[in-house]
Amino acid sequence: MNQGAKLKIGIVGGTGYTGVELLRLLVQHPNVELTAVTSRSEAGQDVHALYPNLRGHVDLQFSQPDVDNLSQCDLVFFATPNGVAMKMVPALLKAGVKVIDLAADFRLKDPHAWQEWYGMPHACEDVLEQAVYGLPEVNRALIAQASIVANPGCYPTAVQLGFLPLLEKGLIDPMHLIADAKSGVSGAGREAKLGSLLCEASESFKAYGVGGHRHLPEIKQGLSDAISAPVGLTFIPHLTPMIRGIHATLYGRLDENSLDDLQALFESRFADEPFVDVMPAGSMPETRSVKGSNQCRIAVHVPQGGDTVVVLSVIDNLVKGAAGQAVQNMNIMCGVPESAGLNQVALMP
Amino acid sequence: MNQGAKLKIGIVGGTGYTGVELLRLLVQHPNVELTAVTSRSEAGQDVHALYPNLRGHVDLQFSQPDVDNLSQCDLVFFATPNGVAMKMVPALLKAGVKVIDLAADFRLKDPHAWQEWYGMPHACEDVLEQAVYGLPEVNRALIAQASIVANPGCYPTAVQLGFLPLLEKGLIDPMHLIADAKSGVSGAGREAKLGSLLCEASESFKAYGVGGHRHLPEIKQGLSDAISAPVGLTFIPHLTPMIRGIHATLYGRLDENSLDDLQALFESRFADEPFVDVMPAGSMPETRSVKGSNQCRIAVHVPQGGDTVVVLSVIDNLVKGAAGQAVQNMNIMCGVPESAGLNQVALMP
Amino acid sequence: MNQGAKLKIGIVGGTGYTGVELLRLLVQHPNVELTAVTSRSEAGQDVHALYPNLRGHVDLQFSQPDVDNLSQCDLVFFATPNGVAMKMVPALLKAGVKVIDLAADFRLKDPHAWQEWYGMPHACEDVLEQAVYGLPEVNRALIAQASIVANPGCYPTAVQLGFLPLLEKGLIDPMHLIADAKSGVSGAGREAKLGSLLCEASESFKAYGVGGHRHLPEIKQGLSDAISAPVGLTFIPHLTPMIRGIHATLYGRLDENSLDDLQALFESRFADEPFVDVMPAGSMPETRSVKGSNQCRIAVHVPQGGDTVVVLSVIDNLVKGAAGQAVQNMNIMCGVPESAGLNQVALMP
Amino acid sequence: MNQGAKLKIGIVGGTGYTGVELLRLLVQHPNVELTAVTSRSEAGQDVHALYPNLRGHVDLQFSQPDVDNLSQCDLVFFATPNGVAMKMVPALLKAGVKVIDLAADFRLKDPHAWQEWYGMPHACEDVLEQAVYGLPEVNRALIAQASIVANPGCYPTAVQLGFLPLLEKGLIDPMHLIADAKSGVSGAGREAKLGSLLCEASESFKAYGVGGHRHLPEIKQGLSDAISAPVGLTFIPHLTPMIRGIHATLYGRLDENSLDDLQALFESRFADEPFVDVMPAGSMPETRSVKGSNQCRIAVHVPQGGDTVVVLSVIDNLVKGAAGQAVQNMNIMCGVPESAGLNQVALMP
Repeated sequence: MNQGAKLKIGIVGGTGYTGVELLRLLVQHPNVELTAVTSRSEAGQDVHALYPNLRGHVDLQFSQPDVDNLSQCDLVFFATPNGVAMKMVPALLKAGVKVIDLAADFRLKDPHAWQEWYGMPHACEDVLEQAVYGLPEVNRALIAQASIVANPGCYPTAVQLGFLPLLEKGLIDPMHLIADAKSGVSGAGREAKLGSLLCEASESFKAYGVGGHRHLPEIKQGLSDAISAPVGLTFIPHLTPMIRGIHATLYGRLDENSLDDLQALFESRFADEPFVDVMPAGSMPETRSVKGSNQCRIAVHVPQGGDTVVVLSVIDNLVKGAAGQAVQNMNIMCGVPESAGLNQVALMP
Repeated sequence: MNQGAKLKIGIVGGTGYTGVELLRLLVQHPNVELTAVTSRSEAGQDVHALYPNLRGHVDLQFSQPDVDNLSQCDLVFFATPNGVAMKMVPALLKAGVKVIDLAADFRLKDPHAWQEWYGMPHACEDVLEQAVYGLPEVNRALIAQASIVANPGCYPTAVQLGFLPLLEKGLIDPMHLIADAKSGVSGAGREAKLGSLLCEASESFKAYGVGGHRHLPEIKQGLSDAISAPVGLTFIPHLTPMIRGIHATLYGRLDENSLDDLQALFESRFADEPFVDVMPAGSMPETRSVKGSNQCRIAVHVPQGGDTVVVLSVIDNLVKGAAGQAVQNMNIMCGVPESAGLNQVALMP
Repeated sequence: MNQGAKLKIGIVGGTGYTGVELLRLLVQHPNVELTAVTSRSEAGQDVHALYPNLRGHVDLQFSQPDVDNLSQCDLVFFATPNGVAMKMVPALLKAGVKVIDLAADFRLKDPHAWQEWYGMPHACEDVLEQAVYGLPEVNRALIAQASIVANPGCYPTAVQLGFLPLLEKGLIDPMHLIADAKSGVSGAGREAKLGSLLCEASESFKAYGVGGHRHLPEIKQGLSDAISAPVGLTFIPHLTPMIRGIHATLYGRLDENSLDDLQALFESRFADEPFVDVMPAGSMPETRSVKGSNQCRIAVHVPQGGDTVVVLSVIDNLVKGAAGQAVQNMNIMCGVPESAGLNQVALMP
Repeated sequence: MNQGAKLKIGIVGGTGYTGVELLRLLVQHPNVELTAVTSRSEAGQDVHALYPNLRGHVDLQFSQPDVDNLSQCDLVFFATPNGVAMKMVPALLKAGVKVIDLAADFRLKDPHAWQEWYGMPHACEDVLEQAVYGLPEVNRALIAQASIVANPGCYPTAVQLGFLPLLEKGLIDPMHLIADAKSGVSGAGREAKLGSLLCEASESFKAYGVGGHRHLPEIKQGLSDAISAPVGLTFIPHLTPMIRGIHATLYGRLDENSLDDLQALFESRFADEPFVDVMPAGSMPETRSVKGSNQCRIAVHVPQGGDTVVVLSVIDNLVKGAAGQAVQNMNIMCGVPESAGLNQVALMP
């Protein structure tokens, strides 16, 4: 891009938690000019009326999602419910607009799998084929060339980053992976659902989606791609009584001969990654250490010197697990420094 | 006991969270007369001055822990830090007083293991030999005859109850058990520790004790006893931002031939247990469903029809994981109905 | 009632938070036989399927709200949205069934005020006339004779109990009362409302209803009745990030000559009240000291020896502020001991 | 300052919550070079080892607090316990270093009052005389000239900003002000105190310091200065179960003739203030709308058209109530733009 010129950016579906988090990051981004924020239900209203934290930072009103209007943008983020983006994306791509979808529409490469897990046929299989899965730590080069990027899910980001070094080196049994993951309640979105009420979700802890969560096929696809072989995964998500944060506790069976220095392996694998922080040996990262920041912090353990490796991986589900990773992808796609606008220090306490 | 006569009960160390929980349960117990509550630091103060929730329910003052005085009791609970009970218990037993220790002093049968994990030599190995591990679902008959009962730890209760049906039937690989457990902050006790501050522990989630938690040898001992063979266990405890509750997510590798109906197995194993509730197939119990109650609720799953069984086990760490189980043991030891004083409905929401 | 005979009790609208709290209290009440729990939306379902904390305590299914069926009861509680009870109550009264309404239908004596604040005309003004306002500390004798009792709102209970001693003695300016009240989120009910989401209501604090909350006229009516004169009240409710509890901080301007011993006044006023606990001088009661119990704890202060009196009044909004007070009223109406089934110790921590 | 040159900044006492918040703000400040962070207890340790959120943002180690070393700084912040700064500040001022004290040492102009409320004699009354009270909305010009600034307390910031417009115009009775204030637990600091434990402070709400809180004389001094006359204030602080945020609910008796447009008055008073946001009429600001930001959001109400005005004022106690306001003062003292480094958007949700 030209020096000084700013990227014209649009957001479709700016009223949910990933939408407002995108807004928080983009209004402070040095290379971005926010051009449009759409919401069918709130069209005409000041954005800061819905989100008072943005008073003084943004003057836009929500507008109707309109392809003509959005075509003025260099890049458009979709922070919409599953199934919305796939209907609008083809027209935007045709108009030369780059797209990042924060929903699931372009995450599963197999349209049949998509239909099976999301309950509707895919609306644009041709676009699906060209979509790049936006995990920069795996696909940076492809993302840089992409017109349409599928931003990973929150659990898949935390789980894949933790398993990748071990799987890529063939150190663990790929058919018996276990991911015990815990998420704050914001992962359920800004919908008035009974189970997300403070009185239902606080002072309690539970597993959910034990039979099969939509992030299961996404994680398996990513890990399988990394080793060009199938993987077996037991993925148990849990709801934990806090707003933000994912903690993935990952278990793998080490091969008999894998006496490698796992700490060095992880440090080496992520040495050049601006947003993956391998903690010192023996660390147990807290989710609050990434609250509001785009970091993924990882620690690797082999408890009691046994044959089970345990990886602890924490992210802010709304940042590295959604809006922050989307901005990271935008930076890569648009040729601005990958960390631009993403240097927030986690809020602590 | 005589009809109408009440058990004279003492509590040593009544100022911590297990102490006040014992008080909550005992002041409402139909067969109990609370005789003494001791605390070195608070001696002379009204119990209800420290715990206003007990105003109107208890008129005692904290007293000095004194063997002569406590010898008037039929049974004495120790809710003291580790290492205190083992110094006073021999004298009380000699005086004919039954004892239930809620700390760890009598949990590990091997005194060397005790010294290794708790950092001090055991003070009364002879008493240790006669102590009964107070998990009624395993040792009910022995408890009924015991003079000294070691009340199980909170994690060990939730984890053992979940694994036992599978191990007893030989359905899973005993050398590769995984227990991913999450506890509310009250498990850390009523001590002014930095890590237990609201500003440190709320809005965050973390693992701790990954290298080796003191409940690891206790769980292994219990499971090993159940199958008369060694077990291998990876036990990862986590701190979750709530006051009460433990959620254990247990993973085991099913043997190839174990096509049993696991739901029926669990229901059968606990059919006569008043405080283990096997939930309907497909359930995912919430910790709040047992908040303030002595129930352990369990569900068993085989996700995606694979070879990994997942057991979800929830308790209130202060009730079934401490004070409630202690009262259950008292009932068994003293010949009153096992459920007496333990029919509280969980507080919800 | 006959010795041994149990009261046949029905609950209309048993799915909300006051409904489940009524169930928690009634299944443990020694004089109650739970006969019917109705819910249009959940009819046919096991009560314990909706509320797993009741597993093992109740075997009923939700049934359709049906006057014939409910007429078998000695007393029926309405835990329904505002405006429902007033349509069914006349028929039940005619059938000789006593009624306690936990909603607002019978709280305001003036039907025009009711219409103004609740947005609908009153459906049975004649019944409204005979309804007794169920604050036992004021109306015990009337409640004992009543067929229909209007159970007070949560804020009105905490606020009136705190102001009454001062107003009854004419010690403060009745035209400039200030009640700054804080409620846990369960006060908003078990409805899927955006503002009650954990992600909206936790880690935040706000005032609401500043312009005029429905409990304002109820409080003014009660206080005005107590002094047979109008009162002026500024009532500001706030939402505080917890599940249960109300803390009312009450401010009054002392008359110049009111050098009375306010501590003694409060102790004397509530000396015979089983559920009002005047704390020792200098106390600052915590809401958790009444969590799950029917107590109202009160402290009175005159900070810095000035002319402003400050009363601190705490209740559990679901117990003394709703279901517990309703059971207390039931006990009074039905001639069983007033404290029967209401001796729960607050859950702490 | 020279274009491009950065301010050399030191922090004495960088381990508490205001210390780490200062670090969060200063590592992102465009005009600041962090030179020294001292801590007696942590000297030699990496700052990011104590605060992992700072990994990648700061490379300093904690050092011993040493006047020689700190004299290299342009400005030094004291984030120390009360009574520490007053012993070191004279030497630093003599060395030409500007100082901002975030503790209370220089807040009360009357050294006798200081001794009375803080329990120790003041160590440098001459410096106290020249210290400027750092509320920019009142003292901006004086702050710009000051060498030593007393950073206001958290409650005093929220309360004074809310009362000032009314008092300055003489619209309310200054002798009967009421401030009902609620604070998150971080206001109690990062000390291992029993009352700050999650299990003590969450799921509960209470008043504290009713007899007299140290912020009472500070608020009275500030308001009294504003009207050059004494004020009477009842100030009741409360502890609310969240980490960050203060909500002050302020009550004043309007004079009979004060029919002014209070909304316009507030908007006009703060029209040029970058960090006071007067909300639209009818608003009820949430503390979370300022979480992590330096804004104070204010709304003014006259409920039910009565003669009591109610002002709602929210801040983040660690930002506008401490570290953020300190940075704002630094900017003013050092001639950099007042908003530099302070444009964070509040984290929501």
